[in-house]
Amino acid sequence: MSALDDLKYNDQGLIPAIVQDCENGDVLMMAWMNRESLQRTVDSGKATYWSRSRQEFWVKGETSGHTQAVKRIAVDCDMDTLLMWVEQVGAACHENYRSCFFRDLVHGELKVNSERL
Amino acid sequence: MSALDDLKYNDQGLIPAIVQDCENGDVLMMAWMNRESLQRTVDSGKATYWSRSRQEFWVKGETSGHTQAVKRIAVDCDMDTLLMWVEQVGAACHENYRSCFFRDLVHGELKVNSERL
Repeated sequence: MSALDDLKYNDQGLIPAIVQDCENGDVLMMAWMNRESLQRTVDSGKATYWSRSRQEFWVKGETSGHTQAVKRIAVDCDMDTLLMWVEQVGAACHENYRSCFFRDLVHGELKVNSERL
Repeated sequence: MSALDDLKYNDQGLIPAIVQDCENGDVLMMAWMNRESLQRTVDSGKATYWSRSRQEFWVKGETSGHTQAVKRIAVDCDMDTLLMWVEQVGAACHENYRSCFFRDLVHGELKVNSERL
Protein backbone atom coordinates (compact mmCIF):
# COMPACT_ATOMS: atom_id res chain seq x y z
CA MET A 1 0.00 0.00 0.00
CA SER A 2 1.34 3.36 -1.00
CA ALA A 3 0.12 6.92 -0.42
CA LEU A 4 -0.14 7.10 -4.21
CA ASP A 5 -3.29 5.02 -3.87
CA ASP A 6 -4.80 7.50 -1.43
CA LEU A 7 -4.53 10.48 -3.75
CA LYS A 8 -7.71 11.82 -5.27
CA TYR A 9 -7.44 11.51 -9.01
CA ASN A 10 -10.17 13.21 -11.05
CA ASP A 11 -12.72 11.38 -13.20
CA GLN A 12 -10.06 10.99 -15.88
CA GLY A 13 -7.67 9.47 -13.37
CA LEU A 14 -5.51 12.59 -13.28
CA ILE A 15 -4.03 14.86 -10.63
CA PRO A 16 -2.45 18.27 -11.29
CA ALA A 17 1.24 18.74 -10.47
CA ILE A 18 2.54 22.25 -9.83
CA VAL A 19 6.25 22.49 -10.63
CA GLN A 20 8.50 24.82 -8.70
CA ASP A 21 12.15 25.65 -9.42
CA CYS A 22 14.08 24.41 -6.41
CA GLU A 23 16.77 27.02 -6.98
CA ASN A 24 14.72 30.20 -6.78
CA GLY A 25 11.14 29.12 -5.99
CA ASP A 26 9.69 30.28 -9.32
CA VAL A 27 6.62 28.37 -10.41
CA LEU A 28 7.57 26.92 -13.78
CA MET A 29 4.48 25.10 -15.02
CA MET A 30 1.58 22.89 -14.14
CA ALA A 31 0.96 19.54 -15.79
CA TRP A 32 -1.12 16.45 -15.18
CA MET A 33 -0.18 13.04 -13.89
CA ASN A 34 -1.95 9.77 -13.50
CA ARG A 35 -0.96 7.24 -10.88
CA GLU A 36 1.45 5.48 -13.20
CA SER A 37 3.21 8.66 -14.30
CA LEU A 38 3.63 9.65 -10.66
CA GLN A 39 5.03 6.20 -9.90
CA ARG A 40 7.46 6.54 -12.80
CA THR A 41 8.44 10.00 -11.54
CA VAL A 42 9.11 8.65 -8.05
CA ASP A 43 11.03 5.64 -9.35
CA SER A 44 13.14 7.47 -11.94
CA GLY A 45 13.49 10.93 -10.38
CA LYS A 46 12.55 12.34 -13.80
CA ALA A 47 9.32 14.33 -14.05
CA THR A 48 6.93 12.21 -16.08
CA TYR A 49 3.49 13.52 -16.96
CA TRP A 50 0.42 12.28 -18.76
CA SER A 51 -0.24 14.20 -21.94
CA ARG A 52 -3.98 14.78 -22.20
CA SER A 53 -3.73 15.86 -25.84
CA ARG A 54 -1.53 12.98 -26.97
CA GLN A 55 -2.85 10.46 -24.43
CA GLU A 56 0.61 9.19 -23.63
CA PHE A 57 3.34 9.39 -21.02
CA TRP A 58 5.59 12.38 -21.41
CA VAL A 59 9.04 12.38 -19.82
CA LYS A 60 9.79 16.09 -19.56
CA GLY A 61 12.79 17.03 -21.67
CA GLU A 62 13.06 13.66 -23.41
CA THR A 63 13.14 15.33 -26.82
CA SER A 64 14.06 18.93 -25.89
CA GLY A 65 16.74 18.12 -23.33
CA HIS A 66 14.95 20.43 -20.90
CA THR A 67 14.70 17.82 -18.18
CA GLN A 68 13.34 18.12 -14.65
CA ALA A 69 15.11 16.23 -11.87
CA VAL A 70 12.54 15.90 -9.09
CA LYS A 71 13.96 16.71 -5.67
CA ARG A 72 10.84 16.72 -3.53
CA ILE A 73 7.10 16.13 -3.86
CA ALA A 74 4.37 17.48 -1.55
CA VAL A 75 0.65 16.74 -1.43
CA ASP A 76 -2.07 19.19 -0.49
CA CYS A 77 -4.67 18.89 2.28
CA ASP A 78 -7.37 17.64 -0.08
CA MET A 79 -4.99 15.05 -1.56
CA ASP A 80 -5.91 16.24 -5.03
CA THR A 81 -2.94 18.41 -6.00
CA LEU A 82 0.82 17.81 -6.08
CA LEU A 83 3.67 20.26 -5.70
CA MET A 84 7.07 19.23 -7.04
CA TRP A 85 10.43 20.92 -6.65
CA VAL A 86 12.70 20.29 -9.60
CA GLU A 87 16.12 21.08 -10.99
CA GLN A 88 15.10 22.51 -14.33
CA VAL A 89 17.50 22.35 -17.25
CA GLY A 90 16.86 25.22 -19.65
CA ALA A 91 13.31 26.29 -20.41
CA ALA A 92 10.32 24.65 -18.75
CA CYS A 93 8.11 26.20 -21.41
CA HIS A 94 7.91 24.91 -24.97
CA GLU A 95 7.95 28.55 -26.08
CA ASN A 96 11.48 28.74 -24.67
CA TYR A 97 10.70 30.82 -21.62
CA ARG A 98 12.11 29.59 -18.33
CA SER A 99 8.57 29.53 -16.86
CA CYS A 100 5.28 28.91 -18.64
CA PHE A 101 3.86 31.86 -16.70
CA PHE A 102 5.60 34.44 -18.88
CA ARG A 103 2.63 36.76 -19.24
CA ASP A 104 0.95 38.90 -16.60
CA LEU A 105 -2.71 39.82 -16.67
CA VAL A 106 -2.75 43.61 -16.36
CA HIS A 107 -5.94 45.65 -16.79
CA GLY A 108 -7.49 42.91 -18.92
CA GLU A 109 -4.46 42.56 -21.18
CA LEU A 110 -1.55 40.14 -21.30
CA LYS A 111 1.93 41.59 -20.88
CA VAL A 112 5.06 39.50 -21.34
CA ASN A 113 7.01 39.54 -18.07
CA SER A 114 10.30 37.89 -19.05
CA GLU A 115 12.63 37.13 -21.93
CA ARG A 116 13.14 33.93 -23.86
CA LEU A 117 16.24 31.94 -22.97
CA MET B 1 -12.85 42.57 -24.94
CA SER B 2 -10.71 41.29 -22.13
CA ALA B 3 -7.99 38.66 -21.95
CA LEU B 4 -10.31 36.92 -19.48
CA ASP B 5 -12.38 35.86 -22.49
CA ASP B 6 -9.34 34.31 -24.16
CA LEU B 7 -8.53 31.97 -21.29
CA LYS B 8 -9.21 28.29 -21.74
CA TYR B 9 -11.73 27.23 -19.14
CA ASN B 10 -12.39 23.51 -18.84
CA ASP B 11 -15.68 21.83 -19.68
CA GLN B 12 -17.04 22.98 -16.34
CA GLY B 13 -16.04 26.56 -17.12
CA LEU B 14 -13.18 26.46 -14.63
CA ILE B 15 -9.48 27.30 -14.62
CA PRO B 16 -7.01 26.35 -11.88
CA ALA B 17 -5.29 29.13 -9.95
CA ILE B 18 -1.98 28.40 -8.25
CA VAL B 19 -1.45 30.71 -5.28
CA GLN B 20 2.02 31.82 -4.28
CA ASP B 21 3.02 33.79 -1.19
CA CYS B 22 4.45 37.07 -2.49
CA GLU B 23 6.63 37.40 0.60
CA ASN B 24 8.64 34.20 0.36
CA GLY B 25 7.53 32.43 -2.82
CA ASP B 26 5.96 29.47 -1.05
CA VAL B 27 3.14 27.83 -2.97
CA LEU B 28 0.16 28.05 -0.63
CA MET B 29 -2.68 26.30 -2.42
CA MET B 30 -4.45 25.69 -5.68
CA ALA B 31 -8.11 26.47 -6.22
CA TRP B 32 -10.50 26.85 -9.11
CA MET B 33 -11.99 29.94 -10.70
CA ASN B 34 -14.60 30.58 -13.32
CA ARG B 35 -14.59 33.71 -15.43
CA GLU B 36 -16.82 35.57 -13.00
CA SER B 37 -14.74 34.70 -9.93
CA LEU B 38 -11.62 35.86 -11.77
CA GLN B 39 -13.37 39.08 -12.73
CA ARG B 40 -14.38 39.59 -9.09
CA THR B 41 -10.79 38.90 -8.01
CA VAL B 42 -9.44 41.46 -10.46
CA ASP B 43 -12.05 44.06 -9.52
CA SER B 44 -11.83 43.63 -5.74
CA GLY B 45 -8.20 42.56 -5.27
CA LYS B 46 -9.52 39.79 -3.01
CA ALA B 47 -8.95 36.20 -4.11
CA THR B 48 -12.36 34.84 -5.05
CA TYR B 49 -12.74 31.23 -6.12
CA TRP B 50 -15.50 28.95 -7.30
CA SER B 51 -16.22 26.20 -4.82
CA ARG B 52 -16.81 23.01 -6.79
CA SER B 53 -18.25 21.20 -3.76
CA ARG B 54 -20.60 24.00 -2.69
CA GLN B 55 -21.16 25.37 -6.22
CA GLU B 56 -20.81 28.94 -5.04
CA PHE B 57 -18.38 31.85 -5.02
CA TRP B 58 -15.90 31.71 -2.21
CA VAL B 59 -14.09 34.88 -1.11
CA LYS B 60 -11.01 33.49 0.57
CA GLY B 61 -10.96 34.38 4.27
CA GLU B 62 -14.47 35.80 4.34
CA THR B 63 -15.34 33.64 7.32
CA SER B 64 -11.88 32.69 8.64
CA GLY B 65 -10.25 36.09 8.28
CA HIS B 66 -7.43 34.41 6.37
CA THR B 67 -7.71 36.69 3.40
CA GLN B 68 -5.59 36.87 0.26
CA ALA B 69 -4.83 40.26 -1.24
CA VAL B 70 -3.93 39.60 -4.85
CA LYS B 71 -0.84 41.51 -5.98
CA ARG B 72 -0.21 40.00 -9.39
CA ILE B 73 -1.71 37.43 -11.75
CA ALA B 74 0.10 35.54 -14.51
CA VAL B 75 -1.22 33.24 -17.22
CA ASP B 76 0.56 30.21 -18.65
CA CYS B 77 1.49 29.51 -22.27
CA ASP B 78 -1.55 27.31 -22.84
CA MET B 79 -3.86 29.94 -21.33
CA ASP B 80 -5.37 27.28 -19.10
CA THR B 81 -3.68 27.90 -15.74
CA LEU B 82 -3.32 31.00 -13.55
CA LEU B 83 -0.59 31.91 -11.08
CA MET B 84 -1.42 34.48 -8.43
CA TRP B 85 0.86 36.20 -5.94
CA VAL B 86 -0.95 37.11 -2.75
CA GLU B 87 -0.44 38.68 0.62
CA GLN B 88 -1.71 35.86 2.79
CA VAL B 89 -3.11 36.63 6.25
CA GLY B 90 -2.63 33.65 8.56
CA ALA B 91 -3.16 30.15 7.23
CA ALA B 92 -4.01 29.47 3.60
CA CYS B 93 -5.04 25.95 4.60
CA HIS B 94 -8.30 25.17 6.41
CA GLU B 95 -6.28 22.76 8.58
CA ASN B 96 -4.43 25.82 9.89
CA TYR B 97 -1.15 25.24 8.13
CA ARG B 98 0.32 28.21 6.32
CA SER B 99 0.39 26.17 3.09
CA CYS B 100 -1.96 23.41 1.97
CA PHE B 101 1.15 21.45 0.89
CA PHE B 102 2.09 20.50 4.43
CA ARG B 103 2.90 16.88 3.69
CA ASP B 104 5.75 15.45 1.65
CA LEU B 105 5.55 12.21 -0.25
CA VAL B 106 8.54 10.19 0.97
CA HIS B 107 9.04 6.54 0.01
CA GLY B 108 5.31 6.09 -0.56
CA GLU B 109 4.32 7.67 2.76
CA LEU B 110 3.12 11.12 3.76
CA LYS B 111 5.28 13.05 6.21
CA VAL B 112 4.17 16.38 7.70
CA ASN B 113 6.71 19.04 6.72
CA SER B 114 5.62 22.02 8.82
CA GLU B 115 3.79 23.08 11.95
CA ARG B 116 0.31 24.48 12.36
CA LEU B 117 0.12 28.23 12.96
